[in-house]
Amino acid sequence: MISVAVLGNGVVGSGVCELINKNDNNIKLSKILVKNIDKHKNDKNHNIITDKIEDIFGKDIDIVVELIGGIHPAYEYIKKSLNNKKHVITANKDLISKYGEELLEIAYQNNVKLYFEASVGGGIPIIKNLKNYLASNEIKSIKGILNGTTNFILTKMDKEKTSYTNALKTAQELGFAEADPSSDIKGYDSARKLSILSTIAYEKKVNWENFKVEGIDDITETDIKKANELGGVIKLLGISNFEKGKIYASVRPVIVTKDSEFAKINNEYNSIIVEGDSVGRLTFTGKGAGKLPTATAVYSDIVDSIQNKENSFLFNYEKAFIENHSSEQCDWYIKINYKNSHKVLNELTEHFKNIDLEVNKKTNQILVIVKSEHEEYINAVSNKLLQSQDVKSLNSLMILNN
Amino acid sequence: MISVAVLGNGVVGSGVCELINKNDNNIKLSKILVKNIDKHKNDKNHNIITDKIEDIFGKDIDIVVELIGGIHPAYEYIKKSLNNKKHVITANKDLISKYGEELLEIAYQNNVKLYFEASVGGGIPIIKNLKNYLASNEIKSIKGILNGTTNFILTKMDKEKTSYTNALKTAQELGFAEADPSSDIKGYDSARKLSILSTIAYEKKVNWENFKVEGIDDITETDIKKANELGGVIKLLGISNFEKGKIYASVRPVIVTKDSEFAKINNEYNSIIVEGDSVGRLTFTGKGAGKLPTATAVYSDIVDSIQNKENSFLFNYEKAFIENHSSEQCDWYIKINYKNSHKVLNELTEHFKNIDLEVNKKTNQILVIVKSEHEEYINAVSNKLLQSQDVKSLNSLMILNN
Repeated sequence: MISVAVLGNGVVGSGVCELINKNDNNIKLSKILVKNIDKHKNDKNHNIITDKIEDIFGKDIDIVVELIGGIHPAYEYIKKSLNNKKHVITANKDLISKYGEELLEIAYQNNVKLYFEASVGGGIPIIKNLKNYLASNEIKSIKGILNGTTNFILTKMDKEKTSYTNALKTAQELGFAEADPSSDIKGYDSARKLSILSTIAYEKKVNWENFKVEGIDDITETDIKKANELGGVIKLLGISNFEKGKIYASVRPVIVTKDSEFAKINNEYNSIIVEGDSVGRLTFTGKGAGKLPTATAVYSDIVDSIQNKENSFLFNYEKAFIENHSSEQCDWYIKINYKNSHKVLNELTEHFKNIDLEVNKKTNQILVIVKSEHEEYINAVSNKLLQSQDVKSLNSLMILNN
Repeated sequence: MISVAVLGNGVVGSGVCELINKNDNNIKLSKILVKNIDKHKNDKNHNIITDKIEDIFGKDIDIVVELIGGIHPAYEYIKKSLNNKKHVITANKDLISKYGEELLEIAYQNNVKLYFEASVGGGIPIIKNLKNYLASNEIKSIKGILNGTTNFILTKMDKEKTSYTNALKTAQELGFAEADPSSDIKGYDSARKLSILSTIAYEKKVNWENFKVEGIDDITETDIKKANELGGVIKLLGISNFEKGKIYASVRPVIVTKDSEFAKINNEYNSIIVEGDSVGRLTFTGKGAGKLPTATAVYSDIVDSIQNKENSFLFNYEKAFIENHSSEQCDWYIKINYKNSHKVLNELTEHFKNIDLEVNKKTNQILVIVKSEHEEYINAVSNKLLQSQDVKSLNSLMILNN
């Protein structure tokens, strides 16, 4: 009989307890750590609920499932669990993207496992497929809708033609967005997840702090409408690729056209496209959050920690140098809030040969479509325009066909 | 060092050898079994090529990779390998769908593994995700584009508005279809794959011989055009579901509308949607065939057979009773080649309340759209019409929105 302790009894924690109790096998739920034990007096599991972390580190626990979230005290608890020779399963993306290499090494030294499938993609089995199934492949690129909250908001804005503010409010009311949604909205959550996937895929430590990260809080109804006119929709994408020894990574809103697999990924769904040198393009789609989808991922890690012999997986400590612009050319949509339309138009026609322009004198906006251009050049021109007196603000979105 | 013998040196076999040689680890290619050794005198691997099957069963081989295909002698070779305590990896769907339960039991008795990831979905990791990752879930349904050849032909017919015969010819010229393509075209290949997935998912032996299996050889340009008018495309789908203790399974051409995830799956790509009670809907998409995608799946099985401790996976011998009609209602497209249009029209309006009709007196065809109807009723009316003197032939296609 394998004995499991679950730290945290929130949405995912209670889902994991449910799956352990439902599945008839040799895995036993032995302890549940909570903050306030008085709240749980009437729980079905009350006889195994504790608020003493020491209960977790005893010899009777084989596997620790950390679902507290955040850096502290999760970091300390995981470290101590590993040092006490317990396998650790976590869904903590903040922690793994920050301290993954150190914690994996501690696990390795102690001959136990540290698995974190649920830290990326909720119910989608992306980490084990990247780490194990694709081990024979050189990974060329990863593209993904990695955050359910922002995808829910963007879907709402697109389907109901509602404002960002309204869509965010609905998401919060329905429990799809937290009271402080900034980590999701600003793209940091996606960036942490992309950093975990990229670190596994490219075998160098890919720090998300070095990415270009843009959120969705600047997306307006104008942008949604323009995306629709182009036959597409706006999605927040994490993109990384590996080419000639260089790693490019970014998180940003992108217009995906109707031929893209991402175009139909709506609401809380996540989708990740991995390209390997042998396997080609592989796509994984599923629910990116939620009690039982995430619990499915955690539970599979519990089983794997028992059944897998391998114990050699480590993050590379060597830090990857992150390129700020992709070497690929694509089309671009640029929205400019101007002060002086003539001067801006002059600059645009001077710098770009192949563009479509739409000037709205009521809103003082210019919408530009630039055909097949490099990100580096788009950024350079954008920065130049932003520094001039003639431009109030500027946003640029990639247009992706697949 | 783990020693591998590969039986068969065709497309996938040579891909597996390539991946073993490329990946720097403790897996060594020790023998390659071929039919005619004289053909391989100048091969890079010629010193390990043999035409003597006895070379495979010796103590120096740890893992046997069977890529000969077909039932005999693959069945005998696998049996003997397992009985000689060797792990066996195979891509052989014919064999697994027919003798899977027996071979898995022999593996179990000998405390070795029999893995067959590449038998379904080419480069898509569907079997290990169904078997391991989703072990905690009750699987409710499986829907999939499971055959690359037919998907290539249907894509060609759709994009280029060409006939079935022309599309098949192109597929054969490009190596996407075999000289005798009947197993693909008639849906038997998809049925075997669906039977393997369903046997794992529903934990009963799901024999494909009991499915309703329809191929794509009756699909005409008229059908493609009609599907497009309905905002969809035609795909050959394997569908199974488990509801209230009953298993429904079929392989048939289906009109998938533009909102379906399957609508964008083109050419040699396969896509499989699994619905679990906890995880919800999970979609896996990738190349369903080809040298290195399939070799990726085989290679991952080699690694898993070394790294996994579990050795308890068995097919259930208990045979599933297969329902012939789904309990779900959906829309239907029916094409009737008639002798007497009046009588057929009378029958149709008598049996269906909510239909759209299109009569073509030049081609003697009636195209019918029936709204939200059960398969059982569609089949009953179709059979009645087919038995009358007034109908020459009749085809019915499901219309699926997701």
